[in-house]
Amino acid sequence: MQKLIITCALTGAEVTREHTPYLPITPDEIAESAYRCWQAGASIVHVHARESDGTPTQDKEIYRQIIEKVAAKCPVIVQVSTGGAVGMTPEERLQPVTLKPEMATLTVGTVNFGDDVFMNTPKDIERFAQVMQEHGVRPEFEVFEVGMITNALRLLKKGLVSEPLHFDFVMGVPGAIPGTPENLMHLIKQLPDGASWSVAGVGRSQLPLSTMAILLGGHVRVGFEDNIYYEKGVLAESNAQFVERVVRLAKELGREVATPDEARKMLGLPL
Amino acid sequence: MQKLIITCALTGAEVTREHTPYLPITPDEIAESAYRCWQAGASIVHVHARESDGTPTQDKEIYRQIIEKVAAKCPVIVQVSTGGAVGMTPEERLQPVTLKPEMATLTVGTVNFGDDVFMNTPKDIERFAQVMQEHGVRPEFEVFEVGMITNALRLLKKGLVSEPLHFDFVMGVPGAIPGTPENLMHLIKQLPDGASWSVAGVGRSQLPLSTMAILLGGHVRVGFEDNIYYEKGVLAESNAQFVERVVRLAKELGREVATPDEARKMLGLPL
Amino acid sequence: MQKLIITCALTGAEVTREHTPYLPITPDEIAESAYRCWQAGASIVHVHARESDGTPTQDKEIYRQIIEKVAAKCPVIVQVSTGGAVGMTPEERLQPVTLKPEMATLTVGTVNFGDDVFMNTPKDIERFAQVMQEHGVRPEFEVFEVGMITNALRLLKKGLVSEPLHFDFVMGVPGAIPGTPENLMHLIKQLPDGASWSVAGVGRSQLPLSTMAILLGGHVRVGFEDNIYYEKGVLAESNAQFVERVVRLAKELGREVATPDEARKMLGLPL
Amino acid sequence: MQKLIITCALTGAEVTREHTPYLPITPDEIAESAYRCWQAGASIVHVHARESDGTPTQDKEIYRQIIEKVAAKCPVIVQVSTGGAVGMTPEERLQPVTLKPEMATLTVGTVNFGDDVFMNTPKDIERFAQVMQEHGVRPEFEVFEVGMITNALRLLKKGLVSEPLHFDFVMGVPGAIPGTPENLMHLIKQLPDGASWSVAGVGRSQLPLSTMAILLGGHVRVGFEDNIYYEKGVLAESNAQFVERVVRLAKELGREVATPDEARKMLGLPL
Ligand SMILES: [Zn+2]
Ligand SMILES: [Zn+2]
Ligand SMILES: [Zn+2]
Ligand SMILES: [Zn+2]
Repeated sequence: MQKLIITCALTGAEVTREHTPYLPITPDEIAESAYRCWQAGASIVHVHARESDGTPTQDKEIYRQIIEKVAAKCPVIVQVSTGGAVGMTPEERLQPVTLKPEMATLTVGTVNFGDDVFMNTPKDIERFAQVMQEHGVRPEFEVFEVGMITNALRLLKKGLVSEPLHFDFVMGVPGAIPGTPENLMHLIKQLPDGASWSVAGVGRSQLPLSTMAILLGGHVRVGFEDNIYYEKGVLAESNAQFVERVVRLAKELGREVATPDEARKMLGLPL
Repeated sequence: MQKLIITCALTGAEVTREHTPYLPITPDEIAESAYRCWQAGASIVHVHARESDGTPTQDKEIYRQIIEKVAAKCPVIVQVSTGGAVGMTPEERLQPVTLKPEMATLTVGTVNFGDDVFMNTPKDIERFAQVMQEHGVRPEFEVFEVGMITNALRLLKKGLVSEPLHFDFVMGVPGAIPGTPENLMHLIKQLPDGASWSVAGVGRSQLPLSTMAILLGGHVRVGFEDNIYYEKGVLAESNAQFVERVVRLAKELGREVATPDEARKMLGLPL
Repeated sequence: MQKLIITCALTGAEVTREHTPYLPITPDEIAESAYRCWQAGASIVHVHARESDGTPTQDKEIYRQIIEKVAAKCPVIVQVSTGGAVGMTPEERLQPVTLKPEMATLTVGTVNFGDDVFMNTPKDIERFAQVMQEHGVRPEFEVFEVGMITNALRLLKKGLVSEPLHFDFVMGVPGAIPGTPENLMHLIKQLPDGASWSVAGVGRSQLPLSTMAILLGGHVRVGFEDNIYYEKGVLAESNAQFVERVVRLAKELGREVATPDEARKMLGLPL
Repeated sequence: MQKLIITCALTGAEVTREHTPYLPITPDEIAESAYRCWQAGASIVHVHARESDGTPTQDKEIYRQIIEKVAAKCPVIVQVSTGGAVGMTPEERLQPVTLKPEMATLTVGTVNFGDDVFMNTPKDIERFAQVMQEHGVRPEFEVFEVGMITNALRLLKKGLVSEPLHFDFVMGVPGAIPGTPENLMHLIKQLPDGASWSVAGVGRSQLPLSTMAILLGGHVRVGFEDNIYYEKGVLAESNAQFVERVVRLAKELGREVATPDEARKMLGLPL
């Protein structure tokens, strides 16, 4: 079995300091959180930018600061969000890609998301792939439903992305595929040969789905973007705390954890 | 096993006379097609209205004509579309519900649909359920992805719909869940006890998925809205031709076909 | 999708004239039944020998007569049983293989079978494979449970069988895997790439599982050995009647039926 | 989710001191191992008797000593084996049941088992169920293949066992169902409502399948009977070491561990 790639989604666009006082918001806080996650065993950090008051933003300068500050501290892979926040325009969402980060997310379909709709039209999906390709940014396909896998494969056929393909199943968002082990098993079976995958279980599905991924040869995404509770009723005090638990589980289950460079190799990123 | 309910989706919003010369468009044509489908064994017709030039419309008066003309010919159940066509507003789409037809579709989520997005926001879904409830119209949940089943169950919890629940899996639309037997089996397993289901396989998946439904105790939707080819490269010459094939298959496979009144009983409609 | 191979299991070891007066028993009757099945569309006949009083036997001379008489009438592939009947010794069961028929069954595990146990010890399985290999006889793996697939693959690793591998799922025998579509889907997913499969549904599961196989790209086995009823409460009047129904279904579902020579090509048999 | 029942299969019939020096063999050793497992969190011990030279035996007197010695040390549930060892007669295997232990295993089918056949004829299965019923011993159904679940349900229909039913999936024995997560998910779906289940993964499948069971609401069996390696190439030094790992995993995954009395309640045993 491949070594385990742990991604930490440090901030997201929806969680606030009212939800949890431990949320990293400024570039400095995000870089510090990234550093601690890397120390704990994460090889990728998935980042969203925020204004100083916490408002989500896709501002290129703030992303630039985040990327530089993280790089100054540790060799973890920085993956920028192109999901941004509900209501942002595609062009707004694409901004951080022009910074040529190592990776960016690419959501391959539209789906209800809580009380909102997370819009990713067929045309926008192609545009996002193209801009990533032009800037040499490796996409991670964010998959919220079964049919989105096919949407990603359509990009491959059109030459807008290249192998190896890497998927992230975001499961348990109200409106999208529920975060059950059965659904995860079904999604995995729909992947093409040679693709790698991770799972981001939202809320209480984070821990069981992470564990399934460790067992099944997939990879794991944890972090405040997806879940703020360490256990029922108890807030996690840091992103690193989630990473530490995954590392303990991986160790207990006999799965080795990948370094950032080992992850780069598996994902087809330049070393 | 329950008797088989055959639905025919006579017209849809996307197919044109350029695609197939056999498409029924006017209320008279639609009523005639409904009548022939009923004769062939259909117990439900799923209808969309069109302007006389073929443009899709949710105009109440045209739906009224369709409903009256069908009722004058045969006792088939008329199910109006609230999907309408891409770009229509929710209020526009809801119009035929106020005619108090026996059934209406209720799409329980948003999904990419070919080059477009089929929008059904969480708020709109609730509104559609409420208007149907107020007018005594029984919803059929149109499900394009796994998570939409959960969205329907949320309506039940909120008291906006009542049991027995009836689902239609629309499979094979580019952008939504692919029309494979494996996906169908997975969807079925996510249904709550006591729910009934049918499958509308789009394009070439129509025939295999219809057959699966006959075998598995589900119900079948066919018709020009989902597929215009009777076999590879050969246009179907009528909606009834599709119904006739399903009836032959059901007979060969030992499954009895429901009359409209038998369907009403199963679906919880007043006789 | 590959063309459809239809196998007819003409006689079996358990069905008697008391069960159905239509059972072919003598070599002449078996050859006549084989001929009519071939005319109807079968490309393989699976045969068991019987004494003139109906007692099951693995007697080489009777098998020789069957093979010769069938060959005199039509080019259908003859597959001899090495299952024989409960209580026979392995050596007894192996006898017809020494006649060098084109194919023979090879049951790859032990399982309860009605009130009895169908014994196929690991040692005997290897011996059967070896004798088939020595006589140039192509095995069809009879699979009654999930783990038997792995047992067949073990023979491949040991060099006792060669690719392409062909499996037959015997489903619905009391004591073995039940004949449900869900179980069939699960079995298929356990097969190695490049393997072909057919399904022999016992009793009332014959028709639905045959239909599933037509849809899923598998092959079909029918016949008196597995099922004597054409429909609930109505005896089939011939083996050919079952074949005819499969052919009608295949035609209705757009799947072409293989000739014996086309089947030989797919199964790796010399032409 | 129910609390987790941990069973430890302390000795089995096949493992020897040559395989591992840590195997408990005498009643004293078995009782000591049971005690340490109970301290670690096990609520059931599954026991096999051995002669003083290590030979497997179903001798009633040795079982009596084991049961008494365990009871003197701790309140763990003792489950006797009726599988015994290959080659034993049914009557031999049934002996410990007459001691009226709280539980006994009941293997519900025949299957190849390594180089041997594990024989459980339909008649013997019924006889075992009957003897257990007469002695007030609660069966745990040992399931090595999909069809065995149906065999157990047949006993229920015949009134030979009573609800609640408890199943143990023994997975990964060469010849039987392989120890994959996918197979486990499939088995679970075949269970009737209200049944409970545990999984005994053989060899290297023990750890991943145990973890799956913790996640999926099942129960776990570990121990030397099924696996002697703590990790690749490293012998476990005690049965308790396996139990300790399951307890750590359960704790990490937020699942509470059942006491023997809590297990009794769930399994329908008198307190
Ligand atoms: Zn994000
Ligand atoms: Zn429609
Ligand atoms: Zn046979
Ligand atoms: Zn045992």
